[in-house]
Amino acid sequence: MNTTTTYSIRPIGFVRSQLADKKDAPDQGSEGAPEAWIEIDKEFTKAIDGIFSGSEIILLTWLHQSDRSVLQVHPRNNPDNPLKGVFATRAPDRPNPIGLHRVQVLETAEPARLKVSPLEALDGTPVIDIKPVLSNQH
Amino acid sequence: MNTTTTYSIRPIGFVRSQLADKKDAPDQGSEGAPEAWIEIDKEFTKAIDGIFSGSEIILLTWLHQSDRSVLQVHPRNNPDNPLKGVFATRAPDRPNPIGLHRVQVLETAEPARLKVSPLEALDGTPVIDIKPVLSNQH
Repeated sequence: MNTTTTYSIRPIGFVRSQLADKKDAPDQGSEGAPEAWIEIDKEFTKAIDGIFSGSEIILLTWLHQSDRSVLQVHPRNNPDNPLKGVFATRAPDRPNPIGLHRVQVLETAEPARLKVSPLEALDGTPVIDIKPVLSNQH
Repeated sequence: MNTTTTYSIRPIGFVRSQLADKKDAPDQGSEGAPEAWIEIDKEFTKAIDGIFSGSEIILLTWLHQSDRSVLQVHPRNNPDNPLKGVFATRAPDRPNPIGLHRVQVLETAEPARLKVSPLEALDGTPVIDIKPVLSNQH
């Protein structure tokens, strides 16, 4: 087993948001991000059974506009901040550009839609996994 | 853009753990999981700059032994628990089998190794991303 083996990720749905442009998106959901809808592919409807309005969930997304070759960044895009490894930051540019977003479910709708908040991901961002927040940690 | 587009994930390193068999692994790190080493591929050494002993980090892994066709499970593998969508559980069997593990870094070693605890992932599990824990949430 070595790091040249690759795995294939398939979107389970997409973000539908008023955020259309990278430059309008806050760095973190807690920094004034809006509500958004998550449209789950109908094929996965059964997999969201047990998610309700009020649930705290973790969305994993694929940040498809990211640069996967970046290994270090100036945190918060500020050149005055010394370079730091991307794994010590939440920068979207990273080898596997997975976004991690803790959100609350505000509403559910047929056939498989979840209204969540706050979400800093752009409109059209692929969603790749959803997990419940565990009471004893994240 | 649709859900048949796929993305390619490449391991950035691997878990080295005494846990070798699924049946020995606890469901969650908080349930008695051991320490483990994360061996980062040398190519990504620069990307862990800024992670220190004492850092709280989130490891994302690829649970390579999972069944990706499973949409519902009996939580905690207990047939008495009613079926629930995998996105409402932390079950490893899910369409994109990404593991999410909040751990503490106990030690760092050259060239790019991190000793972490607690980690319920099996020996040989690919690591696909590392993120810092944010103080205001997960």
